Amino acid sequence: MADNKLVKEITAMDEDFAKWYTDTVIKAELIDYSSVRGCMVIRPYGYAIWELIQKELDNRFKESGHQNVYMPMFIPESLLQKEKDHVEGFAPEVAWVTHGGNEKLEERMCVRPTSETLFCEHYKSIVHSYRDLPKLYNQWCSVVRWEKTTRPFLRSREFLWQEGHTIHSSAEEAKEETLRMLNTYAEFAENCLAMPVVKGEKTEKERFAGAEATYTIEALMHDGKALQSATSHYFGDGFARAFDIQFTDKENKLSYPFQTSWGCTTRLIGAIIMTHGDDSGLILPPKVAPIQAVIVPIAQHKEGVLDKAFELEKALKDEVRVICDGSDKSPGFKFSEYEMKGVPVRIEIGPRDIENGQCVLVLRHNREKRVVEINNLVAEVKKALCDVHTALYERALKNREDRTVSVTTLDDFVKTAQESDGFIKAMWCGDRECEDKLKELAGVTSRCQPFEQESLDGKCVCCGKPAKKLVYWGKAY
Amino acid sequence: MADNKLVKEITAMDEDFAKWYTDTVIKAELIDYSSVRGCMVIRPYGYAIWELIQKELDNRFKESGHQNVYMPMFIPESLLQKEKDHVEGFAPEVAWVTHGGNEKLEERMCVRPTSETLFCEHYKSIVHSYRDLPKLYNQWCSVVRWEKTTRPFLRSREFLWQEGHTIHSSAEEAKEETLRMLNTYAEFAENCLAMPVVKGEKTEKERFAGAEATYTIEALMHDGKALQSATSHYFGDGFARAFDIQFTDKENKLSYPFQTSWGCTTRLIGAIIMTHGDDSGLILPPKVAPIQAVIVPIAQHKEGVLDKAFELEKALKDEVRVICDGSDKSPGFKFSEYEMKGVPVRIEIGPRDIENGQCVLVLRHNREKRVVEINNLVAEVKKALCDVHTALYERALKNREDRTVSVTTLDDFVKTAQESDGFIKAMWCGDRECEDKLKELAGVTSRCQPFEQESLDGKCVCCGKPAKKLVYWGKAY
Repeated sequence: MADNKLVKEITAMDEDFAKWYTDTVIKAELIDYSSVRGCMVIRPYGYAIWELIQKELDNRFKESGHQNVYMPMFIPESLLQKEKDHVEGFAPEVAWVTHGGNEKLEERMCVRPTSETLFCEHYKSIVHSYRDLPKLYNQWCSVVRWEKTTRPFLRSREFLWQEGHTIHSSAEEAKEETLRMLNTYAEFAENCLAMPVVKGEKTEKERFAGAEATYTIEALMHDGKALQSATSHYFGDGFARAFDIQFTDKENKLSYPFQTSWGCTTRLIGAIIMTHGDDSGLILPPKVAPIQAVIVPIAQHKEGVLDKAFELEKALKDEVRVICDGSDKSPGFKFSEYEMKGVPVRIEIGPRDIENGQCVLVLRHNREKRVVEINNLVAEVKKALCDVHTALYERALKNREDRTVSVTTLDDFVKTAQESDGFIKAMWCGDRECEDKLKELAGVTSRCQPFEQESLDGKCVCCGKPAKKLVYWGKAY
Repeated sequence: MADNKLVKEITAMDEDFAKWYTDTVIKAELIDYSSVRGCMVIRPYGYAIWELIQKELDNRFKESGHQNVYMPMFIPESLLQKEKDHVEGFAPEVAWVTHGGNEKLEERMCVRPTSETLFCEHYKSIVHSYRDLPKLYNQWCSVVRWEKTTRPFLRSREFLWQEGHTIHSSAEEAKEETLRMLNTYAEFAENCLAMPVVKGEKTEKERFAGAEATYTIEALMHDGKALQSATSHYFGDGFARAFDIQFTDKENKLSYPFQTSWGCTTRLIGAIIMTHGDDSGLILPPKVAPIQAVIVPIAQHKEGVLDKAFELEKALKDEVRVICDGSDKSPGFKFSEYEMKGVPVRIEIGPRDIENGQCVLVLRHNREKRVVEINNLVAEVKKALCDVHTALYERALKNREDRTVSVTTLDDFVKTAQESDGFIKAMWCGDRECEDKLKELAGVTSRCQPFEQESLDGKCVCCGKPAKKLVYWGKAY
């Protein structure tokens, strides 16, 4: 049947998950490639998802007192170099601007890979007294990191993100902020992306360049690989000292302030795809679906069908992001197209339905059909969207639980990692050597030290010495 | 009086308008400088204005069927070079990325100065049939142009903007789009920025690199200089031919499509400042004022005053962007601070007012005081904001009319230009030589050939040959 052309064009997940992923981002028209290697064109449907993500997060940031700003996209080399760890972490992967017009620049500048240094310079200019604190800033922008291997949304040379940068008079306040924003990300991931996450702290090895502590939310994808979905960093007063930012405190003494930064990126779109998608393409969580419901008229050439379909669209559109597809493509083609695009709810309406005052809702994620009264359509569609959100969350949680294994011996650890992908929970002594060894033997990295600690055993899974922490390990995107 | 410290720190407009401008953008906390020469830090108050501009425009774009996308920020040199006029116009003022990490790039890339070439490459990839047309795309991003002399908002090496890029099956449709978007900008300028504009077409000399026609809205600033506030370009099929974009039309023939682009930038913030501001600082049009009304309690140590002030804030906040400043600064200091920031309406409330069930509204632009009933406050504040918008528009229109002079002789033209800044209306034969000569003799450029043509005289003001067009001339930012 030609109607399934679109779906037939994508590789099955089980056959080749990576290929399924790239097929899906292209066929669902989220991105296009261009001659700018490692960068992507984000197409309207993909960008609309990002706009919904932005709106949800931006509201949350503003409600908690944050303000948006915009910093220059360039960082002079000397400015990047002010904080030692930071420059070591980022310098190898930045793009350098060396010429402006026809002239060579006196000092080369990189395109921002992140903006700590610019925020620090600005804070030095505007923070003088405890009365100037805290500053709770955020910016939405694009950043560049010169990656060797790239994949749409997951790892690209340019990506879109938000970066929060805050500065406080006390360490306590900055630490609170770091965790507040991590919790904001976790709540958002669960309530808007229907994506369960593990909250925890990164090990020293995995920390952000220049941070005293890095916190993360880690999600598990359909294929069992982990995806770091957002991070929040506590800087202590390290950047303030490097940039000589000081303020007069309430006791009239000069003090160094404390800083944080936190960010998430268009990578979240990759997370959505790999958390919820299936062999028919995307499945979008309703809260960030650009089209939440599509009306497909059946036998639309028959009198009254198209009119009725557009009438339903009108009835729904104040409360639901809905479209009615009255084009001359066949219903089967439309089914396939909107399944590929992951529209959570399809509404079918034909002559018989109209006679009976009914229509049929079809849920994208499990093809469940619901015959509903037209008179009650708005409430039924809203209920269906809620149900879909819950079902997606629960399915993803079950996938994570099914793929999470606790181990207490090194043999089991390596065997588990070799047999299938997923989270491995195991105890760790805290030493970098064990972390490196587990990577070497089992090909996994530490994903996080979860806030919800358990004790599986008193001993490190690797060296047998006393364990300090339970750690989630896994292969990661 | 120490209360006027802030205002005293800014230069008077009549003394030095340029200095007044930079004093104002700094003291009103719109921007900060940084070590990135020619770029600016847009601070929360400045960025909030931009967010309101974005919201208003984005709604208008979406209502007229446009979709947002995101293109890479880099353009490979070979791609930039595909359209001859375009590369000649932009190549001298771009920033070049030559290295990624530690490696020299095989081909250098510029940071986008504008994205026609990227959109063309993408259109070539996705446009094949008349069914794929039109594409009505827009993107919000930052662009870079390596300017030698820069001024905050008006001319900076990096600025924020939106760039619309559309592609159509017919020239007529593309021409309609070009004018539709120009009208959208004009309506927005008048209804949201309270800024009257002259709509018209640029002369060939002032056209966008690669365009067949460039349309503009021109505003006149308080000092009599013109500011090009937004432009809309019709490209014909020139870019399509250069990039070999072809589609199968309804007659099954291969055809070249027709394109447009249109944009406006953070420069609009400069336009707002220079259209409405005065010697006390900013005056913001209510529609894009981050704070539309500020409540300043008088004698706030007296019982009940602060409570009442916050009660008013609560009553207003669903309908008005309002804050209540309950800080321990003096009322006089607060008056001065919010005047500097251009808050359109101030609400004063003290013990006597509370007794009388009244409060006092003070309009920023003319200091008019209105004693209003607290019971009727929401309606009164909303009415005041409407009145302010109208008054600002009319004041700006009067400034433009007072500074617009029609002349018919070259002597008068030069004398008028020398005596004071403003628009000069004069007839023109259409020849580039006369345009150049008027610039040389009088220091003005052609701003636009207005849609509303009049005939002042049958002859070109410069050469005396038969005139083709009435043109607005002026000095420009």
